[in-house]
Amino acid sequence: MIVTPHTLRFDAPLLLQSGAVLSGYELVYETYGTLNADRSNAVLVCHALNASHHVAGRYADANGQPIARSEGWWDNLIGPGKPIDTDRWFVIGVNNLGSCFGSTGPTHLNPATQQPWGADFPVVTVEDWVNAQARLLEALGIGQLAAVVGGSLGGMQTLSWTLQYPQRVRHAVVVASAPNLTAENIAFNEVARRAIVTDPDFHGGHYLRHGTLPRRGLRIARMIGHITYLSDDVMNEKFGRQLKPLVQAVQAGDVGAVERLAYRYTTQDIEFQIESYLRHQGDKFSEYFDANTYLLITRALDYFDPARHHEGDLSAALATARARFLLISFSTDWRFSPARSREVLKALLDNRLDVSYAEIDAPHGHDAFLLDDPRYHAAIRAYFEQQVARDLPAGGKA
Amino acid sequence: MIVTPHTLRFDAPLLLQSGAVLSGYELVYETYGTLNADRSNAVLVCHALNASHHVAGRYADANGQPIARSEGWWDNLIGPGKPIDTDRWFVIGVNNLGSCFGSTGPTHLNPATQQPWGADFPVVTVEDWVNAQARLLEALGIGQLAAVVGGSLGGMQTLSWTLQYPQRVRHAVVVASAPNLTAENIAFNEVARRAIVTDPDFHGGHYLRHGTLPRRGLRIARMIGHITYLSDDVMNEKFGRQLKPLVQAVQAGDVGAVERLAYRYTTQDIEFQIESYLRHQGDKFSEYFDANTYLLITRALDYFDPARHHEGDLSAALATARARFLLISFSTDWRFSPARSREVLKALLDNRLDVSYAEIDAPHGHDAFLLDDPRYHAAIRAYFEQQVARDLPAGGKA
Repeated sequence: MIVTPHTLRFDAPLLLQSGAVLSGYELVYETYGTLNADRSNAVLVCHALNASHHVAGRYADANGQPIARSEGWWDNLIGPGKPIDTDRWFVIGVNNLGSCFGSTGPTHLNPATQQPWGADFPVVTVEDWVNAQARLLEALGIGQLAAVVGGSLGGMQTLSWTLQYPQRVRHAVVVASAPNLTAENIAFNEVARRAIVTDPDFHGGHYLRHGTLPRRGLRIARMIGHITYLSDDVMNEKFGRQLKPLVQAVQAGDVGAVERLAYRYTTQDIEFQIESYLRHQGDKFSEYFDANTYLLITRALDYFDPARHHEGDLSAALATARARFLLISFSTDWRFSPARSREVLKALLDNRLDVSYAEIDAPHGHDAFLLDDPRYHAAIRAYFEQQVARDLPAGGKA
Repeated sequence: MIVTPHTLRFDAPLLLQSGAVLSGYELVYETYGTLNADRSNAVLVCHALNASHHVAGRYADANGQPIARSEGWWDNLIGPGKPIDTDRWFVIGVNNLGSCFGSTGPTHLNPATQQPWGADFPVVTVEDWVNAQARLLEALGIGQLAAVVGGSLGGMQTLSWTLQYPQRVRHAVVVASAPNLTAENIAFNEVARRAIVTDPDFHGGHYLRHGTLPRRGLRIARMIGHITYLSDDVMNEKFGRQLKPLVQAVQAGDVGAVERLAYRYTTQDIEFQIESYLRHQGDKFSEYFDANTYLLITRALDYFDPARHHEGDLSAALATARARFLLISFSTDWRFSPARSREVLKALLDNRLDVSYAEIDAPHGHDAFLLDDPRYHAAIRAYFEQQVARDLPAGGKA
């Protein structure tokens, strides 16, 4: 499946939750599949921390050939014949405001100053993103979504859709998510932000004007993130206490190294495989991700808390929802544990809403929501084939 | 109890596990209680990451008056009438090599260059520390310890004592510890080290020569550490999602603030109480702790793995132990979980050693080993009164 991103400009001002106003903005989005005649088969996919509108399919090179390894971040789930089948559903991926993958964000020019926004880009929330996504759907002529789907922070947007636009969402699929962050979740975000903000190349968030990038801070932020995405078990299985030089020597055919090689006794060099993995992840991330975007997106996570205006009562907060729900959690996810999904489950049931819940026994921690665990994908496939398809309006055809 | 630290100089070279040799060194130590006539009531306490020889009691000012808040780090456990009763036991605390609290370490002068050691201080291991502690005990004329006691990294030293000097330890009390680090444990250490090493003020570890200190990196390292010391539950209970400005306003008597104050929508300023707590911990730590010491001590943690020379078979590794053991773990400790203590328990039982095990149901995470949970302290008190006292040699009196 070859795909192409589109850009849409919005000139109407957007009032943000903070009270700030974005006078105009652009959203980058992609679509997969075909919108049916009565526009009833649209599925919106909301992205998490470092993802984008590029949800599925591959990009083409100048000769129209698919570019290797250009698959979208949920390509294992979404496409022709896949659990969310683009032969039936018209799927939309949109890059959120404040991101660094094309939609208006801190690396763009602030029209008021003609300088990059940098740290002056307004704080955006899950609710703001949903409002911006709603305008995109209006522009595409889609009055009601067959489903909204999201994992992690994307699941928060999905949940928020059912509260902000209850009449416009028939189904909500919330994967590996939570009704708000715990103190520990906020703590990890805060350490990552401090690493970025205290990097001398950050310059208060105006590094672009200084011709620098706070890469050190981004590396640390990403390393912390990666630890929380994986489970203790899968880390032990993948890396354990393996020594990197030993693994390299054995890979090069030097089997005797097992006997010969041992600790090198170093505090600054790589000794264990897990160190090599984390440094590599940090280096990669620091090459492409914007530091201000990292701050904005982690803050959107911190701030999300629909129960806040209901004295912490999540059931009261979800009383306005009208959608049917599929919730999925993963047993070894310690970032957004199954207990957090069960909080949402209970609050939905308290409101007598129609909800299915699958707790998948998977070893991969939070990362599981991006992987193609067969039970997980089977649950989503069945839900779309049986539930989402059943609720198409009369005459609608997916 | 007023206490005074002592310094002892050792001129015999110490061969380290890495192969490096420390030509001479000093150890700072404290003692509490009185060594009995046959020198059979000595208890060695091994310290963890950022602690020191100052285990119990208080220091005196120039007038001989106790200085407020100068209590040792395990003062709730050790002292007259306390679970480890210094009216019966002669307790020794010793600062480890490579530390920054007086014993020879990276802030001291390298005799070969007359410059601070900095990053050139040799890598020291748990086994090296135990060897240095053994020499101190020889200098004090103590041939056999009634007990060695340690929590966390101190527990690793305790375990290692029973393997390196099996005839010189009658009892080993290993609290909240592990037989080695998991990949996730190493990962957290590595992120903390990278924060320090990539701080521009680190200068490859020779910051003292440059007149700087890598405080940014130390702050991040400490923040990461603190997250892993606490449980998710206790963080939620202590901090939850409380907003710092709101708490401050209410404390100042402005009860109406609860209605009025809300999110301030900031990416760089403090919004939540947990952020304030972590920043404070980071700031404090960066004022007194040495960065090279942090690298050395986290590496000692990484490298500890007695099963390594037994193809990962911990039971085989512990076959030389002769001590009797008390193991203690805490239910919410996710840094060194009860499962890790049970690995040690199983390996000791495989060797038909005498071992007691208490898994304490405590909410405080890894930090619990420093707190005065009554069941935890009762277990240690009972063990010393019944087991350690019982095994005093004939004629010995504690």
